[in-house]
Amino acid sequence: MSELRLNRATKEWIIVATERAKRPHQFQTKIEKKKLAPYDPACPFCPGNEKETPPEVYAVREKDSLADQPGWRVRVVTNKFPALDPKKKLTKITGDFFRTASGVGKHEVIIEVPQHDRSLATMSAKQVEQVCSVYLRRYQELEKYKKFKLILIFRNHGLAAGTSLRHPHSQLIALPLVPASIRHLLEEAMRYYDDHGSCVFCDMIKEELSAKRRVIFQNKSFIAFHPFASRTPFETWIVPKKHHACFGNISSDEAKSLSVVLRHVLRQMHAKLNDPNYNLIIRTAPIKDAEEDYYHWYVQILPRLTTPAGFELGSGVYINTVLPEETAKFIKE
Amino acid sequence: MSELRLNRATKEWIIVATERAKRPHQFQTKIEKKKLAPYDPACPFCPGNEKETPPEVYAVREKDSLADQPGWRVRVVTNKFPALDPKKKLTKITGDFFRTASGVGKHEVIIEVPQHDRSLATMSAKQVEQVCSVYLRRYQELEKYKKFKLILIFRNHGLAAGTSLRHPHSQLIALPLVPASIRHLLEEAMRYYDDHGSCVFCDMIKEELSAKRRVIFQNKSFIAFHPFASRTPFETWIVPKKHHACFGNISSDEAKSLSVVLRHVLRQMHAKLNDPNYNLIIRTAPIKDAEEDYYHWYVQILPRLTTPAGFELGSGVYINTVLPEETAKFIKE
Repeated sequence: MSELRLNRATKEWIIVATERAKRPHQFQTKIEKKKLAPYDPACPFCPGNEKETPPEVYAVREKDSLADQPGWRVRVVTNKFPALDPKKKLTKITGDFFRTASGVGKHEVIIEVPQHDRSLATMSAKQVEQVCSVYLRRYQELEKYKKFKLILIFRNHGLAAGTSLRHPHSQLIALPLVPASIRHLLEEAMRYYDDHGSCVFCDMIKEELSAKRRVIFQNKSFIAFHPFASRTPFETWIVPKKHHACFGNISSDEAKSLSVVLRHVLRQMHAKLNDPNYNLIIRTAPIKDAEEDYYHWYVQILPRLTTPAGFELGSGVYINTVLPEETAKFIKE
Repeated sequence: MSELRLNRATKEWIIVATERAKRPHQFQTKIEKKKLAPYDPACPFCPGNEKETPPEVYAVREKDSLADQPGWRVRVVTNKFPALDPKKKLTKITGDFFRTASGVGKHEVIIEVPQHDRSLATMSAKQVEQVCSVYLRRYQELEKYKKFKLILIFRNHGLAAGTSLRHPHSQLIALPLVPASIRHLLEEAMRYYDDHGSCVFCDMIKEELSAKRRVIFQNKSFIAFHPFASRTPFETWIVPKKHHACFGNISSDEAKSLSVVLRHVLRQMHAKLNDPNYNLIIRTAPIKDAEEDYYHWYVQILPRLTTPAGFELGSGVYINTVLPEETAKFIKE
């Protein structure tokens, strides 16, 4: 079969072309992975090496332990090679064809656990809960600064997903502007809202729950599914059932609930696909749009099982060789 | 340094963060490549194996040679596993939340030369000229069909760029719709035109020629440069000096002139970066916008020297660790 499918929220068309198809199990990662030790003396993120990173900006610590010393459970530091610098002022050079802005912003690393060999799929429930709670805490801290316009929390798992350090960590980048691609997403969501009087993501939750086939997990507060127009095999969205445009607006109970779904989904993926590389992104509205009715934050997990090539880069249209209905079935089996 | 730079044409911001920088020469591909033979009996694209592919739809052939037999110089066939099928009718299912369209379209493979071990960088000038001429010919043939809205010609070079077959080839996909990302590009170009009364790409040519530092090659009809806001190290644009929104509107002289610049640029890259993986995309206006004053076709070459990760996927903002001024200098040396 060859079918075009539209993601109603992002307005991205994808092509499902199953002639060249693999069965879902054929996407299992085949590379034999070197088993990691729980502690690596050469790793800058391992306990005891706290001086190898910039000073911590936040940590969940054991009672009486000291900053930049062992005893932490989650530790947040500035990226040693930050893409952006919070000390700079936002100065736009206008009037020229070549437009620049100073690289003001924030780039943090969230070291998720002391153990070098864990990942979100193999941590304890309590550990994942702490990670989600720190995500929320850092978001809420940084959204107060007027010079930050959009806060992106993301996680690169595995070499093919762009990570260089194996110790489990996430990253946070606060941007001083709203990128065009996010602006376009918001505009598309706004148009849907104008046309239907409802949030496209709220409608998507209803429709996915009613269609059932692509839903892989849910609890009171979140639903996880393989989107109807999945860009890549096993793309997974985790969407809050309660409408929030902004990740920073959720309650600590919701953050806990998110950790349960996140852990479940990543454990399924780890088990069924043999610990695949993936990118995880918390897609949230720009700070100024935190209260909007038309946008809805969510977690997007993109396994790196295929290589986007010239066609995808040139058109923004992804070719997916397997139906999300099939991958959802496979992952739940 | 950390600086934000805006691509005025695409409205994409990028971050230049040279703290984590490499020098340009450090981007050289280090993997030892297996030397290919000029002929591979197991390759479906090698002469003598014409029956391994679908029948040819076009070929440049030696006099008196027969279709689907050896004797071709460039050979165009339908992709054996086409993402889209020209026989289908365009039928949109409306009224549902989950919107689909039939996978109507065209997916062709342009087998560039009989020799298995060549690439655009190592072919003769005449061979590259023939390839560009076939690009143009196929474009002009397919733009006549009303059901095709956008024609994308692209080339994936190397495994990391998503290719599976080593025999030198390009691909063409004719889409039955204009994807959102292309629509957004056109809208941004239109806004620039409204504000300035000129095509943003025409202005970019003027500005790059005047700034000089990022220009790596030019001839009468084309200019090649590393864009001011390059997404990735060594990103290269080849832009026609004469305004055309559509690739299909160039003359055969211009196609020949393009082949000279393309070959030069890819030979530089091959020599200086040790045959890197790359994607090459001909970015052209949708067929219906072929005569517009505000859009301008160009060739985009994206070397796959870095891995886009969660931040790039989530924001559309790329972090580039080297200045295009430096990569341009290095490539010309």
